[in-house]
Amino acid sequence: MCELLGMSANVPTDIRFSFAGLARRGGGTGPHRDGWGIAFYEGRGCRAFHDPQPSADSEIAGLIRRYPIKSRTVIAHVRRANRGRVALENTHPFLRELWGRPFAFAHNGQLKGAKRLPLGAYRPIGTTDSEHAFAFMLHRLRSRYEREPAPATLDRRIAEIVAELAPMGVLNLLLSDGRTLYAFADKRLSYLTREAPFGKATLVDEDLQVDFARETTPDDVVTVIATRPLTRDETWTTIPPRTLIAFRDGRVASTYAAA
Amino acid sequence: MCELLGMSANVPTDIRFSFAGLARRGGGTGPHRDGWGIAFYEGRGCRAFHDPQPSADSEIAGLIRRYPIKSRTVIAHVRRANRGRVALENTHPFLRELWGRPFAFAHNGQLKGAKRLPLGAYRPIGTTDSEHAFAFMLHRLRSRYEREPAPATLDRRIAEIVAELAPMGVLNLLLSDGRTLYAFADKRLSYLTREAPFGKATLVDEDLQVDFARETTPDDVVTVIATRPLTRDETWTTIPPRTLIAFRDGRVASTYAAA
Repeated sequence: MCELLGMSANVPTDIRFSFAGLARRGGGTGPHRDGWGIAFYEGRGCRAFHDPQPSADSEIAGLIRRYPIKSRTVIAHVRRANRGRVALENTHPFLRELWGRPFAFAHNGQLKGAKRLPLGAYRPIGTTDSEHAFAFMLHRLRSRYEREPAPATLDRRIAEIVAELAPMGVLNLLLSDGRTLYAFADKRLSYLTREAPFGKATLVDEDLQVDFARETTPDDVVTVIATRPLTRDETWTTIPPRTLIAFRDGRVASTYAAA
Repeated sequence: MCELLGMSANVPTDIRFSFAGLARRGGGTGPHRDGWGIAFYEGRGCRAFHDPQPSADSEIAGLIRRYPIKSRTVIAHVRRANRGRVALENTHPFLRELWGRPFAFAHNGQLKGAKRLPLGAYRPIGTTDSEHAFAFMLHRLRSRYEREPAPATLDRRIAEIVAELAPMGVLNLLLSDGRTLYAFADKRLSYLTREAPFGKATLVDEDLQVDFARETTPDDVVTVIATRPLTRDETWTTIPPRTLIAFRDGRVASTYAAA
């Protein structure tokens, strides 16, 4: 199993606090020693950092923990390999361009038969079932829409595609095109929306506390999504099994329960 | 104008010495303040670092200068914007998947009419003529070959595509699929092959010297390609105008002069 971390916000927001908690699970407080990665959207662009080293002692993870990259949409992942050897090309999040947007994808779980899914123009670079599933999703989207559809249309279509994949195994995923952050929970994924009045929060995995009242403005809305709650003094909401939530600007934009 | 840096080697090699020289040109000894990026191939994978900040004072560039990522193929770029605003999505090298390989591309120059080139399945994320030209090249390759051709075949086809683009303006480029590093010089691009017996080298842009005899084994072959020679005590070869050189394992694999 792997751990996922996502963020959707209405203003560019520093994710270092949450990332510190996730990074500790990559070989520190957790068994996820097989690499990690993080993708930050900034404007139309996306930059990603990938490392096959455990995040708990990765120099690049150290940089991310110190360097305040501000983003409205973030996807991060720490890996415990099951399918696909420990290698850079098997490190999530995976990135591909569709409709002139950088799509990012991270997955926790295993899918049986993923490698037999049709992929169209996309070819996996690594050997994970996750990257195959991502290529399949993009192929399905590209086949249906030549250009980017309206966000609500895309939400519905992604819910349909995820419902095709879900019966194949365990599927906890984060997907984004930079406008919307999609979270699908199979077994476990929780989220938390921070907005005014902001309070304090303490990490579960590290002795680190932040007073968000000092870090934010009253209009900020920031949702954090994680495999397991990252803080011990806030109330996290569990995403119901087999449910897709589309987050935009830090808020739930739509919810689809798979049949 | 921008500055390019490439490396092709027969063993995973640390590029920090050359990168230190390039990074100084990004707002330090050079005027290229509009961002920088670097792509490292490792196995089948590729990791890239992009930053719209000047490389001379970028924290991420600082990390790259300290952190020994070893790679056989590297493409780096420091940018001085002409087309396309200063933004993450306009920062080279650009990356796209083709035939299950991560292709990376960096360009120095301007191309007239690049935005009218046919792109097929690829869509630019940013607004540079460079990313358009890259998408065009991948589209041409994909249209001709459903699967990856043999390296020599690919060399020849890339020479043909580059010859189509060259008359549109100024085209100095580095392109790689992780196996081969392609360098096309319009006006200025030089390279240097280091092999046994290794000696010392001193950067032009920074008071930094390396004794490669202490950093290498006798079988290492490492070619570095740069817009302007990076060292003051080695003999660099200027790539002839309108010539494509394909480097594999640190050596020249083929050379094509555009008509």
